[in-house]
Amino acid sequence: MNPKPVPDIVVGRLPRYLQALEHMLLKGIKTTSSQELGESIGISAAQIRKDLSQFGEFGKQGTGYSTSYLVTQLQTILNANQVWDLALVGIGGLGSALAHYQGFSNRDFRIVLAFDNNPEKINKKINGLIIMDIVHIPEQIRAKNVKIAMLTVPASVAQTTTDQLVLGGIRAILNYAPISLNVPSGIHVENLDPIIMLQHMTYYLK
Amino acid sequence: MNPKPVPDIVVGRLPRYLQALEHMLLKGIKTTSSQELGESIGISAAQIRKDLSQFGEFGKQGTGYSTSYLVTQLQTILNANQVWDLALVGIGGLGSALAHYQGFSNRDFRIVLAFDNNPEKINKKINGLIIMDIVHIPEQIRAKNVKIAMLTVPASVAQTTTDQLVLGGIRAILNYAPISLNVPSGIHVENLDPIIMLQHMTYYLK
Repeated sequence: MNPKPVPDIVVGRLPRYLQALEHMLLKGIKTTSSQELGESIGISAAQIRKDLSQFGEFGKQGTGYSTSYLVTQLQTILNANQVWDLALVGIGGLGSALAHYQGFSNRDFRIVLAFDNNPEKINKKINGLIIMDIVHIPEQIRAKNVKIAMLTVPASVAQTTTDQLVLGGIRAILNYAPISLNVPSGIHVENLDPIIMLQHMTYYLK
Repeated sequence: MNPKPVPDIVVGRLPRYLQALEHMLLKGIKTTSSQELGESIGISAAQIRKDLSQFGEFGKQGTGYSTSYLVTQLQTILNANQVWDLALVGIGGLGSALAHYQGFSNRDFRIVLAFDNNPEKINKKINGLIIMDIVHIPEQIRAKNVKIAMLTVPASVAQTTTDQLVLGGIRAILNYAPISLNVPSGIHVENLDPIIMLQHMTYYLK
């Protein structure tokens, strides 16, 4: 174990390495190199070697990496070697699409709670899951020991909903709402607002 | 204009500053400070001042920033002071949700092209837009001079679809597919795969 905290930007690249390596495994590629991995995801080989070196020695000079070994190691580092339960808050268009998205269960994430504030949706089912009133967020998050939420509510209610998630003991929030969330330190937020990502790119488009 | 290229990680923070400042404007907050802005989005005041200083002087020591002036300046820097046309490729659950998402037109993005490969969807309408066969991607992207695409197709066809977008002259891709894309240099890709974001956070959850 590394005694110094690894920079968050390095941590953020590891899931992309894992994703690419899992695709290689599916294709039957048993060994790979930082060059090959880098070319498949557009990151330099030197960067990949430097990132991985923060966590130990995973390959031998000249012979490259065992794909399956590196997959296992990265899964362990990222705690991706277990199933994680998710709460989905906001069952509008995007929330409904996420509720039906196969990609979660394929990758060991499982939506176990769904919430909305619309009386016409509450107690209805979505993909086999009963939609609950958001007033039950704290008690249900706590009862089911859910640590991760996906927030797909309008900006106007994003913060109050976040406060309820925090009250229930949530530890991480995937935020699709177009607003930044205030959370206590120790709670992780990743923002997936498409506008933010689009404006990042339009900077380069003139 | 700054002669040195600004680091991409700095560019990536600017849309978040803009978003927070626009929320302030809506609330009638006429002046702000790097402290106040930082607290609202969880970024240090020093970081914000350093980031903004790459582009010029936007406030006065002690008096802070004019919110509307800083909004205008950031919009100009990010080329967010114009309407950008988007192509949406893949009209499944997520693609349909994006086609109906109000957040784009509210923020000067406009979906003008929609594509799918499913004969049952082709020539149907979604939110007023005719869904076209993906074989028409290059010609349509070029004819409508669209520079940005959102890709919501399965991983198995993400790369071939990307190649068609590139052929049509696309400059930026918002990639929702759970796979990294190979694109020529000069074409920008931002990845929005939720699994990548979730695994980034599970690293911290043990």
